[in-house]
Parts: sequence; C-alpha cells; structure tokens
Amino acid sequence: MSASVRVALLGCGVVGGATARILVEHADGLAERAGVPIELARVVVRDPDKPRVLDLPPGVITTDALAAVKDPDVDLVVEAVGGMEPARSLLFEAISSGKHVVTANKELMASAAEELMAAAGEAGTDLLFEASVAGGIPIIRPMKESLAGDRVSRVMGIVNGTTNFILTRMSEGGLSFEEALDEADRHGYTEADPSADIDGHDAVAKLAILASIAYDARVAASDVEREGVRNVTADDIVAAHELGYEVKLIAVAEREDGEVAARVHPAMLPKTHPLAAVRNEFNAVFVEAEEAGEIMFYGRGAGGGPTASAVVGDIVEIVRHMAGGSPAPGFTYYRKKARILEPGSAPARYYVVLSVPDQPGVLSAVAGVFARHGVSISSVRQEGAGDEATLMLITHTAPQRAHDETFAELESLQAVKRIHSRMRVLGTAEG
Amino acid sequence: MSASVRVALLGCGVVGGATARILVEHADGLAERAGVPIELARVVVRDPDKPRVLDLPPGVITTDALAAVKDPDVDLVVEAVGGMEPARSLLFEAISSGKHVVTANKELMASAAEELMAAAGEAGTDLLFEASVAGGIPIIRPMKESLAGDRVSRVMGIVNGTTNFILTRMSEGGLSFEEALDEADRHGYTEADPSADIDGHDAVAKLAILASIAYDARVAASDVEREGVRNVTADDIVAAHELGYEVKLIAVAEREDGEVAARVHPAMLPKTHPLAAVRNEFNAVFVEAEEAGEIMFYGRGAGGGPTASAVVGDIVEIVRHMAGGSPAPGFTYYRKKARILEPGSAPARYYVVLSVPDQPGVLSAVAGVFARHGVSISSVRQEGAGDEATLMLITHTAPQRAHDETFAELESLQAVKRIHSRMRVLGTAEG
Repeated sequence: MSASVRVALLGCGVVGGATARILVEHADGLAERAGVPIELARVVVRDPDKPRVLDLPPGVITTDALAAVKDPDVDLVVEAVGGMEPARSLLFEAISSGKHVVTANKELMASAAEELMAAAGEAGTDLLFEASVAGGIPIIRPMKESLAGDRVSRVMGIVNGTTNFILTRMSEGGLSFEEALDEADRHGYTEADPSADIDGHDAVAKLAILASIAYDARVAASDVEREGVRNVTADDIVAAHELGYEVKLIAVAEREDGEVAARVHPAMLPKTHPLAAVRNEFNAVFVEAEEAGEIMFYGRGAGGGPTASAVVGDIVEIVRHMAGGSPAPGFTYYRKKARILEPGSAPARYYVVLSVPDQPGVLSAVAGVFARHGVSISSVRQEGAGDEATLMLITHTAPQRAHDETFAELESLQAVKRIHSRMRVLGTAEG
Repeated sequence: MSASVRVALLGCGVVGGATARILVEHADGLAERAGVPIELARVVVRDPDKPRVLDLPPGVITTDALAAVKDPDVDLVVEAVGGMEPARSLLFEAISSGKHVVTANKELMASAAEELMAAAGEAGTDLLFEASVAGGIPIIRPMKESLAGDRVSRVMGIVNGTTNFILTRMSEGGLSFEEALDEADRHGYTEADPSADIDGHDAVAKLAILASIAYDARVAASDVEREGVRNVTADDIVAAHELGYEVKLIAVAEREDGEVAARVHPAMLPKTHPLAAVRNEFNAVFVEAEEAGEIMFYGRGAGGGPTASAVVGDIVEIVRHMAGGSPAPGFTYYRKKARILEPGSAPARYYVVLSVPDQPGVLSAVAGVFARHGVSISSVRQEGAGDEATLMLITHTAPQRAHDETFAELESLQAVKRIHSRMRVLGTAEG
C-alpha cells in the first residue's frame, strides 16, 4: 500500500465539515493510531465558492462526485451527503471501484443495506456505518464485536433526540406537546418538516439497523410498527409521574423463539429504569443480552462533532486493517431476512385511562371486557365522582391482539364515554 | 490453520465455568460468528474430581496448567484464575509458546500490562482483556476502536459494584454505612476481606486500565490517588439529597495539557447526571470526549455470565482475525508512560460541613480562611443556633492543594469546632 491512505469525502455540511476538520486538525494523532497517515484527498461539495471554515490545499475541493469515487488515487470514500440519491449510486460506484466505504446515512442503511453489503462482499471492501445510528454513541461495533459471544434478547432505544427533548420538557417543565415542540424549534432541534422526528420515521430507520445487527438478520424499516408522540398529553405525563413512571419514545426490538418483533411507540418506563434518566436531546440504547444482562450505551445521537467522531473511528478501523495487510472483515450479517413476529402476537402491557359515568356496575362492565379477552388487570384507580369519573388501569402482559380487541370493545361499551389515553408500559419486572 | 480453533481455559470457577458453558452451549452460533468452530480443548482445574455442572469429554479436564499452555494443539489460552501468580507466569508461557491470550484479570492488567503487551508484540500474538474492567460492559473496545478518531478528556466511572450497592442502600433505604455493608454481605456482594472494595483498591486497578486505554499511555495503580467509602455518613447522604446530589464512589481520570490526574474517591454528583442514576450493584463508565461529547457505558460489572460474555467476545475477535489470516492487531498502547499531574495541582470542588459556635464573626473568620487560599465559595448555608451551629459550604473549582491548605487552617481555627465532612463535587457545569 501507499505511504498514506487517501480519503474522498462526499459532502461538507454539518457532519462532513466536522469530519474534514478532525482529519486535518488531528492528523498526527490519527496517523499514530491508524499506523499510517490519513490524507483528505477530495472533498466533494455542491458549491465550491462557498466559504469554508477549513483551509484545504488547492485541488482538494471538487464538485465532481463521480470522478472522486472512481479516482484510482482514492482508497476510502466517506459519504456524508445523506438521503437516498445520489448517495446510494455513489456508494455503489465507490464499492465497484474497490474503495472502502464509511457512511453516516441511516436512510440508506435502513433500506439498501443488503445490496450494499453484497456489493462490498463481492468487491472485498469494507463497509462501516457506526455513525448511522445514535451519532457519537458507539453501539454498532460493541453489539457486533463485544457481544459476539452472547445473544441479544431485546434492544430498547431512545434514538431520536428531538422527541426526547420534547418529552423531557413536557415532563420537567409541565409544557404541552405544542409548547415543547416550539421550544425544540427554538433550540434548532427540529427539521423543516418535523414529521420525520415526531411521527417516529427517524427512529424506525435506526431501529431497523440496530435490530439487524442485534439478530444477525435483516429487519427492514417496513417490518417496524410505528406510533409517534403527537398524541402524548400533559395529562399522560402527570399520570405517569403519579405512578412512578416517565414517558419516552421507545424503539424496541425483541426476539422470542427465533421471531423478531420491532416497533416504535411512546411508552411508560419506571423512573428507576436507566432509560428514564436519559434527558433532553440525549440518546441511549439499552440492550438485554442472555449472558451480559442489561447494558446501556448513552450519549449524543446527533450533531457534527459526535457523528464525525463515529465516522473517523470507522475510518481508523479500516486504515488499521489496510495497514495490517489484512483482508476486509466484511459483513456476514443481513445475509438472511429476520422472521418477523405477526404483530398481534407481540406481548404488551398497557396503561389505559377511561372516562366513565360514576354509577353502579361500570367497573364490573369494564373489568368484564378485559377478562373476556384474557387481559388481566395489574392495578386500577378511580377518580372523580358524579356524572364524570376517570378510571386508570395498568394491565398485565398479554398479546397485543388481546389488548386491541379489548380497546375496540371498550369503545363500543355504553359504560365508557371515551378512551382518554392508552400507552404501553415497558421496563418493569414483567417486561 | 486447522479446521477449528482450540482453546485452553485456565480456571473453572465463577468466570471460567460460565466461559466453558457458553463455549459448549453456544458452539454453533459462535462458529457461525467467528467463521470457524471454537473447541474447548483443555480446562485446567485444581481438583479434577470436583463435580462440574458441565459435561466435558474425557481428557479435557486437567490439572497440568503448564502442559496446557504449551500444548502445540492449543491455539488460544483463556486465563480465568485471577490474582498475580501463577496467572502471570502462565500467561508469559502461553505467549512465548505463540498462543493468543484472553484474560479477565484486573490485578494483572493493572500491574503487568506493559511486560505482557511487549511479550505479545514480540511473539505476534493477541492479548485481549475486555473482561478485566467492568465485567460485561463493553468499554475497552469502544474506547480503543470507536473513539480512535477522538480525544478523551475525562473518564469517570462507577466501577465497583459492592460500594455502589452500599451507597444506593444508604441513599434509598436511609441505612448507615455499617447496615448497608451488612446487607451487601447478605447479598453475597462482599469478599472475605471487604477492604479491596470499600477502601477503593479494586476501583484503583480498574481505573489504571481505563486511563491507560483512554490516553494511550501507561497509568499504573500507584499513580492513582485513593479514598474509600468508610467515612461516608448517613448525614452526608441526607445533605447531598437536600442539595440535589447523590453520593457515589467515583474513579476519575482527567488529562489537561498532556498531564493525567487519576483518583478514586466518594463524590457528590447532581441527580441529573447520568452516573447518579446508576443503582445497586451496576457499574457505568462516563467518558467525555472532545468530539463525541458525553458518552456512558452501563451494565453489570461482575458475575459469571457478564464477565464470561466479555471473555467470549474477545475469543471471537481473535478467532475472526485468525480465520481472516490476518496478523494479530497487537497493542500500540502502553509503550509510553503517562505524565502524571502533581496531585496538589488537580482541580477540585468541595462540599464542606463545619461545626461552629453561633456567634458574631465566625462566618467572617471561616470565609477569610477560604479567601486567603484563593478558594472561592459557591454556596453557603447555616443551620442551628445557640452554642452549636452547622455551616455547609460548596466551593468553586480550585487546586487540590488550595483546598488541603484551607482544611488544615480551618482545623486549627478557634471558630471551627470540627470539620464534620468534606467531599468532592463532580459532574456540575464547572467540572
């Protein structure tokens, strides 16, 4: 190999810019750790005249992405463009040109991972993507390598910083959902279209990647059930606190009897659960493994520095492999598709709030509906009197389908005016 | 290489037994992940007639450790004996016989790492030790690999489960230190001699390993300042709660201007700090990196399953390297010794409780002592009246030496009856 490893960087925005800065500013330390100097040979941008913080030698900045990824002098391509195209095509070009590849692109890894991995396997190149999930938190490598001798039974993550900030402000500041969303906006935590965050799409893509790694089998974004945070109310949060819970948007994947269930939804977690203490824009991934038990990885899930730290970590790993003369480790994962549990069969626990008239026989009628569907009740509390009373229940674990059927029947029940709220309960002793 | 990788396991106690069980029970899955079957070829025990849970083929159990580590048919030696000798000599024999080595031994890695690494480097063998710190929590590999493109400024850990259990019971159950120690004893969390845990020696060994990895330079156990939890009182915990803090035994290593400061001591942490939520026997390591920001790794720091999970993760990594035909990655670390900051210069913040007579001029005299040593006061509260009053202060960050001189002068001050308590404050905005 040559005296240095030459990197082409696609994109010089928040993540790309921070990656370029680290490669230049920390060049000496990185060379020492990687075993060989890492040279930023190409930085592909849309507008070459835009002022950059970083002073790069002439000839490095270019607008010709295709030439950069096919350049025989380039060893490694870093994709920090985001989105599907042209990122996807450029990575295939890079791989078929024999380049190692590092990407921070969650959409791409959640939807085109199999094809990219197959191409990289065939070309004998590395494809690393630590930065695609939970930004600066090392999570893919620990799951893939440190837990290689273990079996993951469940992964639960807070993987979207915007919604965690919103829920934290609702919990700690007593704000409504709309007020908290406004505050997230003022902090610059929201996108132009907030739907990707608050409706759970972003978390779904990240969970698809996490679950695929955890179970060595492909879980697609379309395999993940999704419910966002729009319907979480200030009342839900108050009720959660009274019961000793916090409300979080949880991305959870579980495997039982070889079948995987994956979903994103708001959930109540006991305040003593480590995920309940994850505040503001921070992310965390909580892993339950057969031997290691409960493990959590916590940190910043977004932002230039954290994401670029993960990107550069991947670059250093590839360069170490190259310096050691070893073949690419490749990915044995995703070669098979995960068997997805039929959604109605997944176990669930619910917190439910009902408006009922305060009159004889109501509790009996409500309890009867739960019983008919085989859902047993863990705790119940009634508040208010007169015409309007509120019934709060927490169920024991029962199949999702049994809960859905219970809710449907409750809605048609004379004795129930309205189902105010229903939210899953996670992280307790029974699940 | 041969059709399978043959492992000799030294020791079949809690960790060794769990390691053997995983290697046998998960053999198929491990072979798939590692690329080649992993065969448990030798299990070295002291008493071959002791009944074992695991059914091993005849000829595997042996008492001859030396023959096992030199056996030409063995590729990889796992050391789960613990302590210095014979573990140390056996590992040197294994390395010089060309075997790859995995160890869970913190004493050894805190005191003989340089020699072992040098020997492994010379022999071209792997030496991995993920299980030596924080049991089942992946921490060494993420710091070494995922953060290879970053710079760690501070590592703060709760790395001793026994003392964290004790402090949790004092905090949540209102127990005295002695009562909580008794309870830890009943849970089987204490050693015959509890000093290794409660006086901080165990945490010191783990911090030496963590700091060496974090800073790519050798930090020895003797470089670490040490204070245990014996002097933490129920009153301290109550006061901490009133101020919004929790008390934890913290192992902390910091680097500034190329100099490392490392110490183990009880500290007050704000309740909102992620480490404050680490309860009972759990461990966690909180890393502050220049680019990635704040990262935390949480999980079980001890026990057979968790520790064996880390051991087997290391085995799989080595076997993957062997299967890929690549040379051992080796360790470039520890080749230099860390420059240790002169202890008095380390920055510190303190919580201090003084008994004073409630009379004019006392506060002025006390404040004068702090001021003379350049220690400024962040908050102060006086309680009680009459002959006996209590003064609680929290200082701003100032050198350790300035604090020590302040305490010495306070002790000789007429106006101070007694320094009830003094404890460092960590994890706040100013440090």
